[in-house]
Amino acid sequence: MTVIKWNVRAGAYYDSVVLMQLQRGLLGLPGVVDAGVVMATQANRDLLAANNLLPESITTNPDDLLIVVKADDDSSAADAIGKVDELLARRKPSGVSQDFRPRSLNGAVKQLPEANWVLISVPGRYAAGVAREALELGKHVFLYSDNVSLEDEIALKKTAREKGLLVMGPDCGTAIINGIGLGFANRVRRGSIGLVGASGTGLQAVTTHIHNLGGGISHAIGTGGRDLKSDVSAITRHQALDLLAPEPEPKVIVLISKPPSPEVAIALLSAAQSIPKPVVIDFIGYPPPAHKLGNLHFAISLNEAAEIAVNLSQHVEEGFSFHKQPNHGYLRGLFSGGTLAYEAMLGFQTTLSPLYSNGPITSNQTLKDPLHSEGHTIIDLGDEFFMVGRLHPMIDNDLRIRRMRQEAADSEVSLILFDVVLGEGSHPNPASELAPVIADLKSKRPELEFVAVVIGTEGDFQNIDAQINQLTAAGVVVYRTLANAVNLLSMVFGQVVTSADMPVNLEQLKQPLAAINVGLESFYDSLISQGAQAVHVEWRPPAGGNEKLAALLAKMKK
Amino acid sequence: MTVIKWNVRAGAYYDSVVLMQLQRGLLGLPGVVDAGVVMATQANRDLLAANNLLPESITTNPDDLLIVVKADDDSSAADAIGKVDELLARRKPSGVSQDFRPRSLNGAVKQLPEANWVLISVPGRYAAGVAREALELGKHVFLYSDNVSLEDEIALKKTAREKGLLVMGPDCGTAIINGIGLGFANRVRRGSIGLVGASGTGLQAVTTHIHNLGGGISHAIGTGGRDLKSDVSAITRHQALDLLAPEPEPKVIVLISKPPSPEVAIALLSAAQSIPKPVVIDFIGYPPPAHKLGNLHFAISLNEAAEIAVNLSQHVEEGFSFHKQPNHGYLRGLFSGGTLAYEAMLGFQTTLSPLYSNGPITSNQTLKDPLHSEGHTIIDLGDEFFMVGRLHPMIDNDLRIRRMRQEAADSEVSLILFDVVLGEGSHPNPASELAPVIADLKSKRPELEFVAVVIGTEGDFQNIDAQINQLTAAGVVVYRTLANAVNLLSMVFGQVVTSADMPVNLEQLKQPLAAINVGLESFYDSLISQGAQAVHVEWRPPAGGNEKLAALLAKMKK
Repeated sequence: MTVIKWNVRAGAYYDSVVLMQLQRGLLGLPGVVDAGVVMATQANRDLLAANNLLPESITTNPDDLLIVVKADDDSSAADAIGKVDELLARRKPSGVSQDFRPRSLNGAVKQLPEANWVLISVPGRYAAGVAREALELGKHVFLYSDNVSLEDEIALKKTAREKGLLVMGPDCGTAIINGIGLGFANRVRRGSIGLVGASGTGLQAVTTHIHNLGGGISHAIGTGGRDLKSDVSAITRHQALDLLAPEPEPKVIVLISKPPSPEVAIALLSAAQSIPKPVVIDFIGYPPPAHKLGNLHFAISLNEAAEIAVNLSQHVEEGFSFHKQPNHGYLRGLFSGGTLAYEAMLGFQTTLSPLYSNGPITSNQTLKDPLHSEGHTIIDLGDEFFMVGRLHPMIDNDLRIRRMRQEAADSEVSLILFDVVLGEGSHPNPASELAPVIADLKSKRPELEFVAVVIGTEGDFQNIDAQINQLTAAGVVVYRTLANAVNLLSMVFGQVVTSADMPVNLEQLKQPLAAINVGLESFYDSLISQGAQAVHVEWRPPAGGNEKLAALLAKMKK
Repeated sequence: MTVIKWNVRAGAYYDSVVLMQLQRGLLGLPGVVDAGVVMATQANRDLLAANNLLPESITTNPDDLLIVVKADDDSSAADAIGKVDELLARRKPSGVSQDFRPRSLNGAVKQLPEANWVLISVPGRYAAGVAREALELGKHVFLYSDNVSLEDEIALKKTAREKGLLVMGPDCGTAIINGIGLGFANRVRRGSIGLVGASGTGLQAVTTHIHNLGGGISHAIGTGGRDLKSDVSAITRHQALDLLAPEPEPKVIVLISKPPSPEVAIALLSAAQSIPKPVVIDFIGYPPPAHKLGNLHFAISLNEAAEIAVNLSQHVEEGFSFHKQPNHGYLRGLFSGGTLAYEAMLGFQTTLSPLYSNGPITSNQTLKDPLHSEGHTIIDLGDEFFMVGRLHPMIDNDLRIRRMRQEAADSEVSLILFDVVLGEGSHPNPASELAPVIADLKSKRPELEFVAVVIGTEGDFQNIDAQINQLTAAGVVVYRTLANAVNLLSMVFGQVVTSADMPVNLEQLKQPLAAINVGLESFYDSLISQGAQAVHVEWRPPAGGNEKLAALLAKMKK
């Protein structure tokens, strides 16, 4: 029969390394079967309960330290609990000695003035304060800490952008700057591929695969997983792209993350399109609009992102550089085919904004009134809504011709895209009805463009060549597949990209990396072992972790 | 100043071809500027209004026929309205003569007993009735009509499945059976690629592109756009796959549609995996889990689907035939990396069901309690939930080891997948802690499998070879990239496929196509021009379109 004993310490701060060491220390004591040492949050209490380490009688506050020991007998358990103070007093010896350890960021800067980075891995509730201090001192921030509020993240990133500094994180696990890994990072050769990723393992998986395939890394910049949320609007990611854009290095850029919000995706892809280098995109779980759109290459897995990047870095890509001819008007797509309309939506949703349809992919794309377009619009004219008592638009062109006239009368419309589907059952000569209308509309608005996708074979009874010739003669640009039309139009339309207020100083990033580390000592050890200059701050939370006192002190400072 | 005059005809049925011809006839009359002839639904009234053809004073019921004429002057408008009856009485001459036209499906069957198909394109509210009649007569149905209720669709398809018959549709625009196009279809060469698609232009776009690339089509089977909704559960699509599965022809199958509901996607992909042929999948807008999973090839556009299919049909694929070794237990993934966990979810969501996570892609995948797995589960152990006052699982293995023991104690679990991320900042020897636990768990449950993805390079200080060797010695299957692990596991797990109650008779489908056409006469003309045997039914709605009378007659029949 085992015995459980415990000890609760109210409101005291302990480094998570210390907690792990205490737990291990307890497990090593005679008679001890299991032990748990945790901050007493609900999640951690549940974890203890799942391990049969939480008698119901223990009551705690979330900021208490809870120490539980399960032992073979009463005296072993009591002995173990009695050794807690002794174990807490023990310190793991640092891997590399540092003669004098500053206790503040200010002190650290005096010791290592050339430090251009501050690594922060203190508990989330203290992290924003340390990061603010680092920015005030003019340092870039690598913010490993999680549980930092969204408000703090936005405020920190806005401040950083104004100062031309980077805030990588919060919850940023990985970065490689100038050949030095920050936080978690693998030893990879230096080379011509620059990466921007969210928080950690995505970047680690791609950088290692690039290395294992023989490629190399210039920089890998982490942004934190929330950077792509619309509230944060990818501030760090845009800074990172600006940073990696100038030639000559890196030759190839890789952009990785979980699916961004649509408006952020469009802004990022527009920014990426304006870079005169190939950019590999892996928005994991986001359906790729194509394999390649101009200089953008879409991967469907971390693996493939690495493979494409290595391939591009080793072979100069011919003609990738696409100079956008921005089209400031709206596109209106008038489709007789529902699936074609849907594939068009899929292609355009990453590049055109705002985009609406009567066959939307997401509900916020729903066109309020199918009879009136707004912004960029794709209409499926074969939708049931239009079809009661009416022939399909592949047989009867009347509905589409009326809609073409309606769209052409809208001065904000600059391009009308439509399909012409030939074959059995379809109108015997659709171009004979469409071409004269288009010629008429173009005579009134010569700048209005018409693009047609003609679906059919040379065996179709309408004579596909004659159809195409009639359309071309009326000034229509004709494609034979939708994907080709959509890919080209995706590059012509799109947002105009404006750069950040204050660019990050690239030259500064090329200096040998020197950093101040606040939090996990293992990150300091890792910097030193990589040959970087570093100082570790002997950080303690304000007022020894007593939050009421800390709040009082902070008030007095103001 | 133009003048508008109109005429309303209550509750009468007119073929939509007749309405188009009437509108054209009116437009051809002297002085007429514009004309509209529509069933007076709200959508059609709005369309007339958008064309300035709807004075506010016109009141109508949705089943009224509304005829509007805009002319230069009063007398031209009045003359035009006066000619409506004369124009309605005119008939477009049929392209091919048919000596005697039956007025019912029964009559048509007597005239063409070898007919194996009935094409139905009557208005939606009559279509289900005609389709029921066709099924009772033992005929396959091509149901072009739209505006058929979901309940009718489900009932028709269930009846058809019991009888070994196909119902393609409703709202099925396209099919190619045995070289003959039904509805809208292009002239394409016959060949070794079989297709299954939703409603129309998707199939047309792919079949034409296949033809234009030099490939050929065996059958193209349409299902209707709603077949993949969970209510209908892809009845027709499963029948179609069963039909195309037996060797030798087609050599390659292509499956196209808008994104299906997840559970339907999983069932369809499982069915496709069990076919001993390559299957090309384009679920438009669904993120592909891989380019290739065993015999499944995922395309990201209609274009690419055609290209892959042609390529596969021309080159015998080596080793594509994957015989599933079904694993009936659950998979539990314990990840230290959030992005890796997310990519695993993405890969598994098309093959494993039910699938849960604390980092779900869709909300219905949300794990209720992150501390307890259900079904197949992927856990991101680096999630903020677990991280308060605790070291990251890449540094401290305790949390993962406890969870491994927990999962292994669940007898429904057959495989535990995990990542080991090496590099700066990570645990110096993670395998030394994980391998003994795994060896212990495997000694208790030898059938329990462990699969690890080890991320790192030969430069990482943990010594990647030593890490892999320790894991392998403990019985762990090790992969170096997540995609490879997920792709293989996706094929091992998955549902067992049971075939339909009553398979569709393939031999019957190989007979020369003979069809009865009810509705659009142009579909009859098209069949004849393709050399198929066909009979056109001189169909009129029950009780002349008077629905009250029709309902009464239907009651009396019962």
